[in-house]
Amino acid sequence: MPPIRIAVLISGSGSNLQSIIDKIEKKEIYGELVLVVSNKRNAYGLERAKKHNIESLMIDSQLIGKDDYNRQILEAVIEKNVELVILAGYLKILDKKFIEAYRNRIINIHPSLIPSFCGKGYYGLKVHQSAVDYGVKISGATVHFVDEEADNGPIILQESVAVDFDDTPETLQSKVLAIEHELLPEAIKLYCDGKLEVIGRKVSISK
Amino acid sequence: MPPIRIAVLISGSGSNLQSIIDKIEKKEIYGELVLVVSNKRNAYGLERAKKHNIESLMIDSQLIGKDDYNRQILEAVIEKNVELVILAGYLKILDKKFIEAYRNRIINIHPSLIPSFCGKGYYGLKVHQSAVDYGVKISGATVHFVDEEADNGPIILQESVAVDFDDTPETLQSKVLAIEHELLPEAIKLYCDGKLEVIGRKVSISK
Repeated sequence: MPPIRIAVLISGSGSNLQSIIDKIEKKEIYGELVLVVSNKRNAYGLERAKKHNIESLMIDSQLIGKDDYNRQILEAVIEKNVELVILAGYLKILDKKFIEAYRNRIINIHPSLIPSFCGKGYYGLKVHQSAVDYGVKISGATVHFVDEEADNGPIILQESVAVDFDDTPETLQSKVLAIEHELLPEAIKLYCDGKLEVIGRKVSISK
Repeated sequence: MPPIRIAVLISGSGSNLQSIIDKIEKKEIYGELVLVVSNKRNAYGLERAKKHNIESLMIDSQLIGKDDYNRQILEAVIEKNVELVILAGYLKILDKKFIEAYRNRIINIHPSLIPSFCGKGYYGLKVHQSAVDYGVKISGATVHFVDEEADNGPIILQESVAVDFDDTPETLQSKVLAIEHELLPEAIKLYCDGKLEVIGRKVSISK
């Protein structure tokens, strides 16, 4: 079988994208990165794609309407025969049509232990600010399939980190990012190896 | 200084109570268990107290009014000069007067990683049922100071456990209980050693 065709959607620096590129280049993931899409012109992730000769596309979500924006992304991934879509620090919400077309084939990473600190309004540094303000002693990262509700779909993998009294949102973010860079490629590897099965809200991982 | 005078409130088998008794008898906690209170007549924890010659009190919460019930518990702990109150599988909610009298001196253990699966309606097996139904891959236990809202006060310690696809609420409960039996005594030890400081919503632990 040919490798799984993967698209990665980003909004920023793309450090999670880099972790995926690295694992694919090391042949640890049986997949091919066929498209990187950014909704922001200045996203550094676009540079990373260029460096590694990966086709990229910038669709400025501020310049076109929501429907047009979503239609263009969906067309782009279908045109490239994408089989798996990864949201890696992608700050837009995909519309219903996209989610239906790629049911259980869209993977997102969220920088907390869902269902803590997730859902509408919890993105980027705000997640870590909330965790620090709450005073939790453990946070972490969650990789999950995407459904119609924000940060709600079936959970594939989670991993925890200790939160220290002196942690700031920024120091917690960098701790969690270190985990994300392992967890997201691991989930993609499991997907590409055909080891994930969604049963109701739960994800079974075969050995 | 004399050891910290501790009361433990229970509703059931009191396995967490046992873990506290054991650590005190091994001198790992610098405290004295001066009172066990149960709101249920048949709570096995009452037997444990008897076996270890600890004074115990049963106030049947079903037979008397809420105000009387709460007044009697508060009077009992004050009479015994209790300095620290532990809720160990205690399924009633303490009233405002009690919480004010023992501000930052009441410790509760909750069988999830707060703020996940906590608050009103989340107690006992229901917590684990919710975690299993949600499909989380990580759960855990939280020890925290008690304030006016359920499962809301400053967090002292948290620890995580892996949730497997095949876990039932019962198997998850026993995994988490194993952690509880370490985490609660550890928090009590830190308290008795004067190492906990509440600063806003956060708990600082000195070394």
